[in-house]
Amino acid sequence: MATDFATRMLGVESSSVRDLLKLTQRPEVLSLAGGLPAPELFDVPGLADAFDRVLRGPGGAESVQYTVSEGDPELRERLAELMLTRGIQVASEDVLVTTGSQQALDLVVTALLDPGETVLVERPCYLAALQLFALSGVRVVSVSCDDDGLIPEALAAAVREHRPKLLYTVPTFQNPTGVTLSLDRREQIARLADSERLWVVEDDPYGELRYHGEALPLLTSFGAERVVYVSTLSKILAPGLRLGWVLCPPSLREALTVAKQAKDLHTSTVDQRAGAEYLATGALGPQVERLRDAYRPRLDAMLETLPEVLPEGSRFTRATGGMFVWVELPPEVDALSLLSAAVEKGVAFVPGAPFFAEPGHRNSLRLSFVTLPPDQLHEALQRLSAAVMQLPQRLG
Amino acid sequence: MATDFATRMLGVESSSVRDLLKLTQRPEVLSLAGGLPAPELFDVPGLADAFDRVLRGPGGAESVQYTVSEGDPELRERLAELMLTRGIQVASEDVLVTTGSQQALDLVVTALLDPGETVLVERPCYLAALQLFALSGVRVVSVSCDDDGLIPEALAAAVREHRPKLLYTVPTFQNPTGVTLSLDRREQIARLADSERLWVVEDDPYGELRYHGEALPLLTSFGAERVVYVSTLSKILAPGLRLGWVLCPPSLREALTVAKQAKDLHTSTVDQRAGAEYLATGALGPQVERLRDAYRPRLDAMLETLPEVLPEGSRFTRATGGMFVWVELPPEVDALSLLSAAVEKGVAFVPGAPFFAEPGHRNSLRLSFVTLPPDQLHEALQRLSAAVMQLPQRLG
Repeated sequence: MATDFATRMLGVESSSVRDLLKLTQRPEVLSLAGGLPAPELFDVPGLADAFDRVLRGPGGAESVQYTVSEGDPELRERLAELMLTRGIQVASEDVLVTTGSQQALDLVVTALLDPGETVLVERPCYLAALQLFALSGVRVVSVSCDDDGLIPEALAAAVREHRPKLLYTVPTFQNPTGVTLSLDRREQIARLADSERLWVVEDDPYGELRYHGEALPLLTSFGAERVVYVSTLSKILAPGLRLGWVLCPPSLREALTVAKQAKDLHTSTVDQRAGAEYLATGALGPQVERLRDAYRPRLDAMLETLPEVLPEGSRFTRATGGMFVWVELPPEVDALSLLSAAVEKGVAFVPGAPFFAEPGHRNSLRLSFVTLPPDQLHEALQRLSAAVMQLPQRLG
Repeated sequence: MATDFATRMLGVESSSVRDLLKLTQRPEVLSLAGGLPAPELFDVPGLADAFDRVLRGPGGAESVQYTVSEGDPELRERLAELMLTRGIQVASEDVLVTTGSQQALDLVVTALLDPGETVLVERPCYLAALQLFALSGVRVVSVSCDDDGLIPEALAAAVREHRPKLLYTVPTFQNPTGVTLSLDRREQIARLADSERLWVVEDDPYGELRYHGEALPLLTSFGAERVVYVSTLSKILAPGLRLGWVLCPPSLREALTVAKQAKDLHTSTVDQRAGAEYLATGALGPQVERLRDAYRPRLDAMLETLPEVLPEGSRFTRATGGMFVWVELPPEVDALSLLSAAVEKGVAFVPGAPFFAEPGHRNSLRLSFVTLPPDQLHEALQRLSAAVMQLPQRLG
């Protein structure tokens, strides 16, 4: 970056992974890389009808006019209703609409964090959250996780040592690991947030995409005053509308609203109204059911096939929902080398290293099981297997 | 704001003006306050058709999927074509799509400005830019303007004294004054940007809304390397779609793209595609012509009526385009008191004080002449006159 840019831009460069992934956009490459919902499952006719009713209805002109920063009142009402199905009772005024949940994170960072303050994250952590934290000049400290999510003892130790202002977590079907925080750990973390006056962002894009087992109560349901709940319609309806939302204490919501006003005035009025119109039809429930039914066999197929595909000594997470499975290859295997071989064979994934706040972890990678239809998913895993066969380490 | 929020939120409070303006949302109040385009002039059927073609066409699913941070390729192409009609030749790759031009400002601030660095602004300045600068912790210094916009001598002096990193300006039909920077001053400021290595943001939301006289070349047309051009479809098509864009040198564009990815990933795919689809029909040109024909008599009516409405000793700007006329009341008249009286009579405007980086200016106000249809505009000005009649100062 040029020398007269802001200090925060130093070291923020287009990454080698980003460059590699551009190769994967070639049509012949089957991609397990992106966090993209399966496009063939979008309810496009339902969305087209919703936009149509909004734009051709009596509020048509209003639906393309400026609106308030807090969000369209109708959408806030529908999102409050949606939260009821997740076990949370809120008023529509408690909902702040954001331009995707990514913006919700930006607003929280703006309202809560001074440069140099410390944020705790999961190890590994959602990539674009790390990028946002880097841009914000905050200090990032990662906390150990296992197959039940964040390890409370490690978290408590990190809180004592680093006096963080905020913990950022994806408790359910985490990105990138697919892991879910267990019930007792949720309670422990909520208690810790209260006792240590620690802000906790519960990022919940995937919670409704459960394919096995029973839903767990949200972190925010344990009554801690400092849990900021963030969610989105991106994974359950469609990401292209950029509709996210935040639930948080009123004083923080006021601060987030002021920040939102300065950052983009408000989220697209027509998208908000169409989203509200869609939710009002009651079509989201069946749509999510349809996604679950389509994604479940994709997850099962991936988990079933991976032992045959991966090099000996690999480990992978047994996700029960969401979009991702996380792989740790044997220590001597570099995921970037494997990606080169894989792209040659016509399949792509994301190497795991960028999901970490610290260097290393070159033997890890993330696989998305939702984007490809079953036949292509099967073919992609075969190609991955062929790439693994080419690894020199296999000969050792 | 609470004590454990970020330092940047200190002093950022819901203002008394904001509270007063909430009163003006009562349906019986005719508002000259908001910077809202006239809703009855939106081409709602044209937009409905565009959304329909996008969502029911072969790219329907893609139009609600994630897209790249830079923006939809088709929209970038159409915006590059639009820039040709403004005298600027760029490739589609030169266009970065933003979530309204407000986001463009946020990205520029993020990429260029460290806290404590100095930004020059016009006196008075677009309110939401001031709010953004305040939130960013930069130092704001305002520069004197007259009826030809920024005064070059004052600007040069401010550059020498304050060593600013950036100048933020709305050269054409400024918000809030409606004033346009003269041709020779444009050239002088472009030269100054080059010689002083000063970044200049040319914010151009209103340029096409000219009702009298000839268009002037854009600041960015003078070849200065550090002019960042920012524009939006909000005032010429519809604000609710939140479609803005930036033109700038490639290295800065890369930095803005990285910042955009961290802030909201990308702008609504479906809005971008519908915007592109609308532009592709060629309907924007006639639509802008229609806006001009409708707004011109509203401006003329306001300029004609104001001398009878305002207290003796008032001054107002003679805008030739855009949306606003700026009023300076006699020094002893407080615009907030006038607003109270006005709201009682059923008319609202924005007091001018918040448009200044420094305190004072309590005798100024901004009037929008575009939002109300002619009969209501006439009635609003009559009510304003009645409110002025009630001012105690009139008796003096």
